[in-house]
Amino acid sequence: MPRLRLALGQTNPVVGDLAANSKQVLEAARKASAAGADLFAVGEMALTGYPIEDLASRPSFLVAAHEAVDALARQLQEAGLGDLAVVVGHPDGPFEPRLIGTSNAPTAIAKNRASVLQHGHVTARYSKYHLPNYSVFDEYRIFIPGDELLILRIKGVDVALIICEDLWRDGGPLAKLLEADAGVLLVINASPFERDKDDVRLPLVTRRAVETDTIVAYVNIVGGQDDLVFDGDSVVVDAAGTILGRAPQFIEHLLVVDVDAAAASDTELPPAVSRVELSDPRAVATTLSDDIAVPPDGREQVWNALVLGLRDYVDKNGFPSVVLGLSGGIDSAVSAAIAADAIGADRVYGVSMPSQYSSDGSRSDADDLAANIGLHYTTEPIADLVLPIETQLKLTGTAAENVQARIRGIILMGLSNLHGHLVLTTGNKTELSVGYSTIYGDSAGGFAPIKDVPKLLVWEFARWRNQLAASRGETPPIPVNSIEKPPSAELRPDQTDQDTLPPYEVLDGILDAYITRKLGRADVIALGFDTETVDFVTRLVDRAEWKRRQGAIGPKISGMAFGRDRRLPITYRPNDEPLPGAKIRSS
Amino acid sequence: MPRLRLALGQTNPVVGDLAANSKQVLEAARKASAAGADLFAVGEMALTGYPIEDLASRPSFLVAAHEAVDALARQLQEAGLGDLAVVVGHPDGPFEPRLIGTSNAPTAIAKNRASVLQHGHVTARYSKYHLPNYSVFDEYRIFIPGDELLILRIKGVDVALIICEDLWRDGGPLAKLLEADAGVLLVINASPFERDKDDVRLPLVTRRAVETDTIVAYVNIVGGQDDLVFDGDSVVVDAAGTILGRAPQFIEHLLVVDVDAAAASDTELPPAVSRVELSDPRAVATTLSDDIAVPPDGREQVWNALVLGLRDYVDKNGFPSVVLGLSGGIDSAVSAAIAADAIGADRVYGVSMPSQYSSDGSRSDADDLAANIGLHYTTEPIADLVLPIETQLKLTGTAAENVQARIRGIILMGLSNLHGHLVLTTGNKTELSVGYSTIYGDSAGGFAPIKDVPKLLVWEFARWRNQLAASRGETPPIPVNSIEKPPSAELRPDQTDQDTLPPYEVLDGILDAYITRKLGRADVIALGFDTETVDFVTRLVDRAEWKRRQGAIGPKISGMAFGRDRRLPITYRPNDEPLPGAKIRSS
Repeated sequence: MPRLRLALGQTNPVVGDLAANSKQVLEAARKASAAGADLFAVGEMALTGYPIEDLASRPSFLVAAHEAVDALARQLQEAGLGDLAVVVGHPDGPFEPRLIGTSNAPTAIAKNRASVLQHGHVTARYSKYHLPNYSVFDEYRIFIPGDELLILRIKGVDVALIICEDLWRDGGPLAKLLEADAGVLLVINASPFERDKDDVRLPLVTRRAVETDTIVAYVNIVGGQDDLVFDGDSVVVDAAGTILGRAPQFIEHLLVVDVDAAAASDTELPPAVSRVELSDPRAVATTLSDDIAVPPDGREQVWNALVLGLRDYVDKNGFPSVVLGLSGGIDSAVSAAIAADAIGADRVYGVSMPSQYSSDGSRSDADDLAANIGLHYTTEPIADLVLPIETQLKLTGTAAENVQARIRGIILMGLSNLHGHLVLTTGNKTELSVGYSTIYGDSAGGFAPIKDVPKLLVWEFARWRNQLAASRGETPPIPVNSIEKPPSAELRPDQTDQDTLPPYEVLDGILDAYITRKLGRADVIALGFDTETVDFVTRLVDRAEWKRRQGAIGPKISGMAFGRDRRLPITYRPNDEPLPGAKIRSS
Repeated sequence: MPRLRLALGQTNPVVGDLAANSKQVLEAARKASAAGADLFAVGEMALTGYPIEDLASRPSFLVAAHEAVDALARQLQEAGLGDLAVVVGHPDGPFEPRLIGTSNAPTAIAKNRASVLQHGHVTARYSKYHLPNYSVFDEYRIFIPGDELLILRIKGVDVALIICEDLWRDGGPLAKLLEADAGVLLVINASPFERDKDDVRLPLVTRRAVETDTIVAYVNIVGGQDDLVFDGDSVVVDAAGTILGRAPQFIEHLLVVDVDAAAASDTELPPAVSRVELSDPRAVATTLSDDIAVPPDGREQVWNALVLGLRDYVDKNGFPSVVLGLSGGIDSAVSAAIAADAIGADRVYGVSMPSQYSSDGSRSDADDLAANIGLHYTTEPIADLVLPIETQLKLTGTAAENVQARIRGIILMGLSNLHGHLVLTTGNKTELSVGYSTIYGDSAGGFAPIKDVPKLLVWEFARWRNQLAASRGETPPIPVNSIEKPPSAELRPDQTDQDTLPPYEVLDGILDAYITRKLGRADVIALGFDTETVDFVTRLVDRAEWKRRQGAIGPKISGMAFGRDRRLPITYRPNDEPLPGAKIRSS
């Protein structure tokens, strides 16, 4: 069996920055070459970042991406790396718009491609066949699908090349692969992180390796891009399902793995499969040590995703620092801890904005948090700013309470305007679900670090992060009191969240059923929740859609995040409830 | 040639309200029957409203829609309308998710359907074949496409039934229709209004009638649904391209037209075409008078779209009234005039919120506007509310200016919280494009009536609306001074928009090229715009994406509105500019 040395580069591209992204690929290729690799691959769209969304319908963008691929081939050659076969993902076009199948996308002028570079030229191209158009993905909107499988012959081994979704779907390139008898299946990916997704992704890779009797080399990009976090976690699995190499999550990494693959035979190729012969790189005799990362437990993975999502949003958009309000509550405490882990406490500015309803406990909890983390900390009391407004407008009740939250929003935005901070808004997923926040008040901000974290998980994170600190001999960041006291918005005397909302255990249960599992009212009730509570909660969820539409983005960690993952009308009069138990229909 | 009496019902459904929407269909069917119609049709998704977005992935919603169709059939029968053949659009399911073609939508469990009801039962069903997945449409995300053409035989005439996008695409049902030799092509639609869309839609209907040698009956829903406005404009065109009947735009209407169609023959049906025989309704001998509406000029159409979009958002969401800030400027003046046209001046609350920088002219312009329109009008000076904040936070420059706008936002939201008003935000498309607004300040609000109207068009509307009033002998609503004075945000002494922005003629030209026409920087410059100005403007557009994401919805009137029509990343470092002139690529 011929031995092939594969190098998989987990790069962290910035959408649009072709020069910087190309440079990342070039640098990683240099290391791959130095490590003696025969074949080097980076992720899907590593050249432009992912997702590019409707940039794919801007012809000049596609031309620039195409030219950047040619330029990269030349740069590799000029850097003495021309021997190395390099696979890079990028959009390509513009092509004539085409209507495909029974769908149609008159705006689609692009293809989602992998190009193979060697000796200063593009040697071969593959176009993604299966275009995901669900969840956060809109690829059928913007891409023309490919219709061929590409096989690269290198050092006597046939390497089939596909892109991301192609691996998840039966039929198409995988069906052709079974006929074409390749030794290695190389998959380039831009696969966003979700909680427990490695429980799905690794078994998939393993299953495909076994099914197709190939060594599967899976390379994913890494980094935060708006509401998505790509976790890397690139992996190589042999045809028996054994992990040969695995990259760590959430950081840039070059994974180099030797594989002993079946020798290519000269059987006739099935239709719609093309084969390109690559010249063999010079042999480099070195021995590799194992590089098999073991991912941390689920909570730590999610925390790392939140940290990277925030860090990349801050850094890719050029913010010097972040600012957030510290109420003494659990949400702002956890958000501050994430921010400090992401960009360092010296770039985090906390502001305590007490009112007459803020308890002494809350103020000292905020003080303690700031001290524990070591962030910049100031206090801006709001009573004197709120009173003139309440008085002039004769506001009472909720209308008056909202002014407190909105003055806090003005303060944070004012500090942002003065100093260039990114404002973090600290609402959790439970709050966002039921609209338990003041729009233009505590929801004001450019990024929402715990937007996709339900309240119960916020508490769990707080305890876990404190334990982690303790286990490292560091000061636990979150004050115990912030974790243990009853949650309150503190907009009126002795208020607690449970004056208005059901207990969080019940609330998060109903929300999971209604939002994540998409159950109707009757089916949620059938789970055992109280009818009145279900009606109350689902009504709140429906009515808060307009607020969510105006909310800040934040990292998706669940299978159903707010934003493009869940697209619902604002104007919606729910009068559409049958009895529980929807039956599958046959016609 | 047999004569068929067709009735097309332009109903205005509310998304989700199956009971109310069914009642609309039932009432229109009653009128259709009284008018002697043989076949009565309402629009695509008339039973659930459109677009239902991801409600289509909620099984209970689909069950409820399916049951509502059965119930409607029974109600028609019970109302003595069982003889009438009724075609109604609705989603159906849940079906097993299927992967279709090279795309895939594991979440799609619904079909977009037309059901034919007669004698208390569903007699036939058609599933939409071509699923639009571009612009504002996401149908490939949520629907499983159909694969057959349905032909209804009624009174000796073959009526082919298709849905919306099916009419726009060659191939599929239209290709089958050419073989199947029907006399009438009935198309049910949910086709949103766009400026000048009737220049495209009517010629399409006419062309299809000629191409297929059929009488085309096109029925569209009417009404506002979030950012879309459906204009109705239902039409019947004969095979020579002559308009036999046309409904007015933007109102509910029953269009009844007699057509003399080719008699059905008993040629064999092509594959994937099914035919259902309907029983003939009792004959009713009446004579119809012509019902051929002539649409008003383009400006009036757009105005009517803005008016209906606002009215339906207010009424369908149950707001008693709207509130908006009146600055004396043109944007708030035009917004107020739209609001008064939409829901009546007595449901419109205007608030003047002058600062020390507001000119006397602006104040009196706001006063004049309020008096002209006759809306509720109060004044809330902001100086005493702004000063404590500026002082405590030591804000200067833009940071201080933004406080003025944000205090105004707090005032309007406070009044909304007290009285239940919907807050209107009055930014125009040009402002939104370049981010020339204060987030959580003047952008605060639930609905943005002129969000898709560029500044130059705002002025045009103001002049046109005043002329219309004059021609009717009414008081022109917009003060002349608001139209003629240089636009200003009035956040500092003697400020005008053109201190910061290029002249609006230039600005709107660049924006049209960059946003609507999707040209890259170099191609915009090649149109003759100044390089520095193009760089300045396109940079502003890119950087304002985060603000637009948090903006209110408003009616789409252009071919490229902000919102789901244009999906771009926030994190985007534009470094992707080739030379001008993108060439179409062949591979």
